[in-house]
Amino acid sequence: MLNYNEYKTMVEENLLCFIPEVNPYAKTVKEAMEYSLKVGGKRLRPILLLAATDFAGGCVKEALPFACALEYIHTYSLIHDDLPAMDNDDLRRGHPTNHKVYGEDMAVLAGDGLLNTAHEVIIGEILKASDDHARMARRAKAAYAISNAAGINGMIGGQTADVENETKQATAELVKYIEDNKTGALLLAPVLAGMALSGADDKMTDNFVRFAKAIGQAFQISDDILDVEGDEALIGKKIGKDLDAGKCNYACVHGLDSAKAKLDELTQTAKEALSEYGNNADFFIELADKLKVRKA
Amino acid sequence: MLNYNEYKTMVEENLLCFIPEVNPYAKTVKEAMEYSLKVGGKRLRPILLLAATDFAGGCVKEALPFACALEYIHTYSLIHDDLPAMDNDDLRRGHPTNHKVYGEDMAVLAGDGLLNTAHEVIIGEILKASDDHARMARRAKAAYAISNAAGINGMIGGQTADVENETKQATAELVKYIEDNKTGALLLAPVLAGMALSGADDKMTDNFVRFAKAIGQAFQISDDILDVEGDEALIGKKIGKDLDAGKCNYACVHGLDSAKAKLDELTQTAKEALSEYGNNADFFIELADKLKVRKA
Repeated sequence: MLNYNEYKTMVEENLLCFIPEVNPYAKTVKEAMEYSLKVGGKRLRPILLLAATDFAGGCVKEALPFACALEYIHTYSLIHDDLPAMDNDDLRRGHPTNHKVYGEDMAVLAGDGLLNTAHEVIIGEILKASDDHARMARRAKAAYAISNAAGINGMIGGQTADVENETKQATAELVKYIEDNKTGALLLAPVLAGMALSGADDKMTDNFVRFAKAIGQAFQISDDILDVEGDEALIGKKIGKDLDAGKCNYACVHGLDSAKAKLDELTQTAKEALSEYGNNADFFIELADKLKVRKA
Repeated sequence: MLNYNEYKTMVEENLLCFIPEVNPYAKTVKEAMEYSLKVGGKRLRPILLLAATDFAGGCVKEALPFACALEYIHTYSLIHDDLPAMDNDDLRRGHPTNHKVYGEDMAVLAGDGLLNTAHEVIIGEILKASDDHARMARRAKAAYAISNAAGINGMIGGQTADVENETKQATAELVKYIEDNKTGALLLAPVLAGMALSGADDKMTDNFVRFAKAIGQAFQISDDILDVEGDEALIGKKIGKDLDAGKCNYACVHGLDSAKAKLDELTQTAKEALSEYGNNADFFIELADKLKVRKA
């Protein structure tokens, strides 16, 4: 297996390759899509997909279009989330948000374009395997995991509940739903997709699902903590936004100390889920530790 | 084969069936998605898909989720197109537009939800055929035709060029690109998908592609003519919008008389493409004639 930065390089070197050429009349939407993809980020979701595939003995090169498609979906969600009608953010990762550069109309289209292209890429990968039934079925399973996680029973569902959570007194149950879906689903999908592409057995898949669910929740809680205690310069966006918007998250429902204790507990759960693999799972163990202490 | 209204009934009776149940916290996005689907419309795209499948000897019931997914994509494009940042429309098919009822944030999410659900449904249908390789490959081909037509080399590409066409003096070439992609692609996709699902041969597929390209352009030109001469009460939206927005279409580049002559010519081309099938193709011949004289 490679290390985090090696997978990251692989993602970044290939991230734009799966976006098709377009007619010059449509070049602005492609530029806008690429702008937000190039702004950077941790690339956590595609890296998890590549690493899970690699760990389970699958082909990393085969997983690359699925990994990039997942990053397209993540990026589209940020573009739409930043729109004036949504969170109305001017900065993302320290750069002007998509609609600040390309206008609101083009930002809507760039988001739509990324979501559609993600699906076009993964359906295209299924189709390309038409001469190998087992491979085709594995790719279809991976594609479904990604599409389902992005949908109304995943990220869009969580986003809906989040939008409606504004100015409400949230319950712990609602906050859990939002965090599991708005963030968690798209961190579980890479593991499900990687396991599907590799034809991993149920036992390994179950272990990795437990791992991904734990780091997904940990990731969101560390985000909530950063929203209170983070460094704007490192994060590249305004902090205190949830509280300003009257939105409730784990830290505000349970308190900051409980949030930090929960983060420790979840990191431990994630590591235990993979304990039977010993040092072979070091990549994932280190990732769980890294997410716990992240500053951005 | 059935007649137009029989296929339409089949579409409308099943249109909401493929949208999954959601957690109560996410129910608003599902409501908003269903609101726009229920507002009605000609259902031209899903009907074409069912009819093409039926004509080519495929299974209409198997085609139904693909047909509905196509209507989800068409409907999402209308919701996003109507947003204040885009065309800023208050009425669609005589009813308040999605954002007028649910707010701009939920309208963005409802559009995203429909686009994602469309793909989730068609990828799910590929996956369900995992025990039958030929069927799986046919479904993957149909799914790709739909996804590709909706993307940046199809509808989103056309929409991009249309947005940029505002206040510009359009060339005939630009207008052709917009019409082929913004409208044409999603009228070609049902025919490609229906032929793929049925395993139709290249000759039949080519004939139907010529038919669909001709009616796609005819449909757009009749739209342009309606935008000048139509009856607002019948259309359910304001007329004269293209001209007010400074947008150029076929009628404004070539003149209204040329547009009407072109509409006749395209209708003829569509009918000739299927001439070898005689009365067996009556459904499509009648459809071409109906589109030529449509009032809404």
